[in-house]
Amino acid sequence: MMFDSLFHPSSIAVIGASSVEGKVGNALLSNLIDGGYDGKIVPVNPKSKEIMGIRCYGSLSEYNEKVDMSVIAVPVKFVKPAVAESISSGAGAVTIITAGFKEVDKEGARLEKEIAELCRLKGVRLLGPNVLGVMNTHHKMNATFAHNMPEKGGISIISQSGAVCAAILDWAVSNRLGMSKLVSIGNKADINEIDMLEWMGEDERTSVIVGYLESIVDGKKFIQTAEKVTSKKPVIILKVGTTAAGVKAASSHTGSLAGTDVAYGAAFRRSGVIRADSFEQLFDFAKALDMQPLPRGKSVAIVTNAGGPGIICADAIENAGMSVAQLDHQSATALKKKLPEAASIGNPIDVLGDADPDRYHVAIKTALESDAVDAVITILTPQTMTKAFETAKVISELSHADKPILACFMGGRDILPGRAELVSKRLPDYTSPERVALSLKAMYEYSLWRERPARVLTHYPVNKRRVERIFKMYKNMRRSQVGEAEAKKILKAYGFDIPNGELCVSADQAVEIAEYIGYPVAMKIVSRDIIHKSDIGGVKINLQNSEAVRDAYDLMVMRITRLLPDIRLEGVYVEEMASKGREVILGMSRDPQFGPMMMFGLGGIFVEVMKDVSFNLAPITKDEAMQMLEATRSYEYLSGIRGQTAVDIESVAIALQRMSQLVTDFPQIKEMDINPFIVGTMGVQSVAADARITLSEKWIENG
Amino acid sequence: MMFDSLFHPSSIAVIGASSVEGKVGNALLSNLIDGGYDGKIVPVNPKSKEIMGIRCYGSLSEYNEKVDMSVIAVPVKFVKPAVAESISSGAGAVTIITAGFKEVDKEGARLEKEIAELCRLKGVRLLGPNVLGVMNTHHKMNATFAHNMPEKGGISIISQSGAVCAAILDWAVSNRLGMSKLVSIGNKADINEIDMLEWMGEDERTSVIVGYLESIVDGKKFIQTAEKVTSKKPVIILKVGTTAAGVKAASSHTGSLAGTDVAYGAAFRRSGVIRADSFEQLFDFAKALDMQPLPRGKSVAIVTNAGGPGIICADAIENAGMSVAQLDHQSATALKKKLPEAASIGNPIDVLGDADPDRYHVAIKTALESDAVDAVITILTPQTMTKAFETAKVISELSHADKPILACFMGGRDILPGRAELVSKRLPDYTSPERVALSLKAMYEYSLWRERPARVLTHYPVNKRRVERIFKMYKNMRRSQVGEAEAKKILKAYGFDIPNGELCVSADQAVEIAEYIGYPVAMKIVSRDIIHKSDIGGVKINLQNSEAVRDAYDLMVMRITRLLPDIRLEGVYVEEMASKGREVILGMSRDPQFGPMMMFGLGGIFVEVMKDVSFNLAPITKDEAMQMLEATRSYEYLSGIRGQTAVDIESVAIALQRMSQLVTDFPQIKEMDINPFIVGTMGVQSVAADARITLSEKWIENG
Repeated sequence: MMFDSLFHPSSIAVIGASSVEGKVGNALLSNLIDGGYDGKIVPVNPKSKEIMGIRCYGSLSEYNEKVDMSVIAVPVKFVKPAVAESISSGAGAVTIITAGFKEVDKEGARLEKEIAELCRLKGVRLLGPNVLGVMNTHHKMNATFAHNMPEKGGISIISQSGAVCAAILDWAVSNRLGMSKLVSIGNKADINEIDMLEWMGEDERTSVIVGYLESIVDGKKFIQTAEKVTSKKPVIILKVGTTAAGVKAASSHTGSLAGTDVAYGAAFRRSGVIRADSFEQLFDFAKALDMQPLPRGKSVAIVTNAGGPGIICADAIENAGMSVAQLDHQSATALKKKLPEAASIGNPIDVLGDADPDRYHVAIKTALESDAVDAVITILTPQTMTKAFETAKVISELSHADKPILACFMGGRDILPGRAELVSKRLPDYTSPERVALSLKAMYEYSLWRERPARVLTHYPVNKRRVERIFKMYKNMRRSQVGEAEAKKILKAYGFDIPNGELCVSADQAVEIAEYIGYPVAMKIVSRDIIHKSDIGGVKINLQNSEAVRDAYDLMVMRITRLLPDIRLEGVYVEEMASKGREVILGMSRDPQFGPMMMFGLGGIFVEVMKDVSFNLAPITKDEAMQMLEATRSYEYLSGIRGQTAVDIESVAIALQRMSQLVTDFPQIKEMDINPFIVGTMGVQSVAADARITLSEKWIENG
Repeated sequence: MMFDSLFHPSSIAVIGASSVEGKVGNALLSNLIDGGYDGKIVPVNPKSKEIMGIRCYGSLSEYNEKVDMSVIAVPVKFVKPAVAESISSGAGAVTIITAGFKEVDKEGARLEKEIAELCRLKGVRLLGPNVLGVMNTHHKMNATFAHNMPEKGGISIISQSGAVCAAILDWAVSNRLGMSKLVSIGNKADINEIDMLEWMGEDERTSVIVGYLESIVDGKKFIQTAEKVTSKKPVIILKVGTTAAGVKAASSHTGSLAGTDVAYGAAFRRSGVIRADSFEQLFDFAKALDMQPLPRGKSVAIVTNAGGPGIICADAIENAGMSVAQLDHQSATALKKKLPEAASIGNPIDVLGDADPDRYHVAIKTALESDAVDAVITILTPQTMTKAFETAKVISELSHADKPILACFMGGRDILPGRAELVSKRLPDYTSPERVALSLKAMYEYSLWRERPARVLTHYPVNKRRVERIFKMYKNMRRSQVGEAEAKKILKAYGFDIPNGELCVSADQAVEIAEYIGYPVAMKIVSRDIIHKSDIGGVKINLQNSEAVRDAYDLMVMRITRLLPDIRLEGVYVEEMASKGREVILGMSRDPQFGPMMMFGLGGIFVEVMKDVSFNLAPITKDEAMQMLEATRSYEYLSGIRGQTAVDIESVAIALQRMSQLVTDFPQIKEMDINPFIVGTMGVQSVAADARITLSEKWIENG
């Protein structure tokens, strides 16, 4: 496999190996040795003959055999020669620990690029520069300068920050959490998060992938890869740099271009990536997903030896959008028979403060056997009679069921033996009920993702050629703003219903068109120089007869040429009055990272004041279009729940999909709005009443 | 002081002391001894002569001297005699550990009440039943059956759950967090959370109060007490049972009546209580407030040896509503001079992965000295050169400034020595940047509370007598629904502007009134049997002349008597048309726990669909009324920010205050709405266009 030299090298050269404690080259070597790496280790340092009892070479060329991977920790200026030497020695992978490249200055960026090019030409994969290194517990390989190597396990980590890796490793070792691979990707001169995601997706010894990311190199490829991987195993990512201050901190850190947070959210949803909201959630979620089966529903039983934490947990379950299971009659009867009278056999099942392991056994077993229960949370607080270790043993014995069990042992040293037992039996334990509840929720959502129906995109028959011609015209005119009249032609070509209308250049013509369309009509000034027509009196509505049309034409043109004498006036658009209905806004703006981002919101104040909008990445399916509608708080207003007249919601979903098809077909569309899209009541046509399209300047300039 | 016998008893009787390990009476005795309690310990148990080397008495009467407190752990049926015996022996406080009272059945509740009454009559304070006990580290007294007694410290705890206490104690001991008092209040037969809050508020050795509550015994008294206490020291409360499932769990737990969550939120805000959203937040916040001075502003400097966690922290600071400080030029220059070139001297200040304690010193000191900085967060990840302990030492040496420093040492065993040093020097440490940020925010909000201006209630001159007469009339009629016409009279008496109008009982009279008021007018049917007038055609608006008024009267009355032949029709209300303006809703409903809860929201969809409403407890000040307006998302729509016509916002604030005065003056008002209250544009009067008042049935029945 592609990254075998990186994760399973048969020999490793440490270029810059050192006998001086505290040096990175010293740590690298001793970590390889201490970790028990059983391949060949080749220290390289012109100043030493031997380090830590291993022969040291003055250069790699001195060592005549092939090395599989080289790890480089020499000063910046010596890095390129070290890479060249590694390539000559047959290395399949090179890891550059040394910092001081792209993240520092332009000179560093240039050098980094040169080195990457060198590797690329020879087909050698490059990790770094500016990384902690790479680790594979199953290969007993700690090729990082962090001395902590966790036990073998299923969680693999991709991190853009070496220091975050170091903190994770230290924490994992202390908590005896098993891990599989860890890779610090640093400046990503070659190997990036997508490569690693893809590889770990195929890796049989990785069950869960955890990522800490400040940026993503290629949004679309990321989505494709992640969707493939998450269909097999969970991927949990903490994306940082989500606020203005965070973005600033991130850019001074690695100079990476941060996409918008909303776009990341949409991309993660699209690709089934579980998003962690905090550092702690990364491993809260990872251990649950690594250790336990997925729940098949969202009904949770709580087994506790304390009322209070049971209540906290019930609150947390509801707040997380899960539900506290209603135990069936049979289970309740079973509990009543086997538990003391004072025990609460509702849910939470309170096995009382003096509960012995047996009582936990009875309660958990009954809960697991109940059809009403999809998952069990067991809470333990240290009371006089509490046997944390023995209880942990009993719980873990029950955890071979097909339903997940999560534990919350609350306290400190009294419950430590229990905690240790749980972790050794792969039963995830949490310090608070709130964290268990959120972890269970992540599991449940992932189970929904795994069960999702196939995405089926509707391909509407459209007149693509017509749109191509219009855009070509704009390109020839070197204009990026597509006016209302042309925008509507485009929409019509994509199957939208638009009000009947024509552009006119005289009052007579206006009347002629109006007579043809039928009264009442609306009239709008058309000029590439005017964006907000109504602000300058460029819109007249509800004109009832020829006299009104003639007056409106003359007045509008007169006033606007007086107000803006230099304006390029194209004429006046005469249009049938759109029927009444609910106004919504459909929008798209192209995210630099992830491409066309669709937006939906109810018109006016809902968007402007309440910011009640939803997003998804095009192309969208019918289900996704419906989800966009349902994701707004104002959806019930649209759907007629609150005594409102119900409108044709499906027409909005279709419009979103048609627009999605349009912006996917034409990447030169940078932004577009249909505002308002008037949603008709049942039986009344919905229409795109106004539209605006902005083309990419770059496309206009270069094609 | 009142609870001296509870917290500083000179002698303690343990009734039910036992030599059998695992028994509660055994744990109680050994905990008292092991804790080092140096008062007199009096074990009582008829079956023993001596336990743990201390003489044991068959009964308290056998022991001839006075006991200050007795702790009772005997079976339920022996509890009452034990209490009586304790009282006879002169106990000032009695703690009943035994469970099986109110929380079990009616018989238990009766017995509990009898015991409480017995104590009350003798002026003896009763803790429990169903508690873990009471602890005072400064008195070396562990009168609980949990063996963990933390070190001396400033945090005192009130908990409604004994198991939560046990978990907290275990955790605190393991983390070496100091505590002052701990009291488990259980069934609250006598001593409750308000007593304890008040006492701890006065206690010189308590610096922070932490509460775990499932219910509150008296909402108004709680607010009064908490407001007094929080003016001196912080109070942090986790209120559980906030969701439907949680309430259910709570009621099966202690049978306590849970108020609504919104009301608790308002009560906590009003009284300056810091609300914890999770179990972990209780002590995240408590340790920060106990150990560090309050920040004077919200600008935070971040000092870190790792870029990644710096970004996480910057995100978290912004998300918490705090801000990442813009370092001033002078500080930046100082940092540039003293830190390595590669260090980032922006904020986060990145002292780099190989940072020694000196670099932390320079960066933190510079940040503390900058006027642009109100607080410092120091982050440390374990890297090769990292000296966790020495860095912790340096940080704690700097923490005698008047600005808070909080730490986030990320990792496991490598950073433990640093963590231990921090906690011993009273520098709060957190496991993740997100938790530091939220804790700092809690500190900042508490500092705002401490600096809050005095609450000044406006007392408007009103005609209270008139309202009294109207309510008396309703009472005499045994009617609880006050109709629109009367409700408006009430509002008028309280200084509201209402549209001119009169009730009429004939078409002639309607025309007469309309002529007097002036056209256009509105007409509304008046009947105690109709709540939603417009639903049944009972409202006509914009009537322009006498003919329209006459037609409207006849039509309305004819249709309604045909539709609802049994209706009690009082007449038709003729009213001037309210001027146009923005419609808002002012409401009040009386919370069973905290009294009159005021509600504000923009009319129509904002309230119905968007649930965009805000609450506060009456009586409210002008500032609080303004805060209610500003707390809605739709406020900017009202305030004219988004190109809307600005309306007279102050008139809404005044209306809220007048309504607050009305509902405070008349506790018999159970619910009321002014809907719509029409807010005029500047210079145009705002009016209460419709109103509805519901009186308390109980008041009507009993007065």
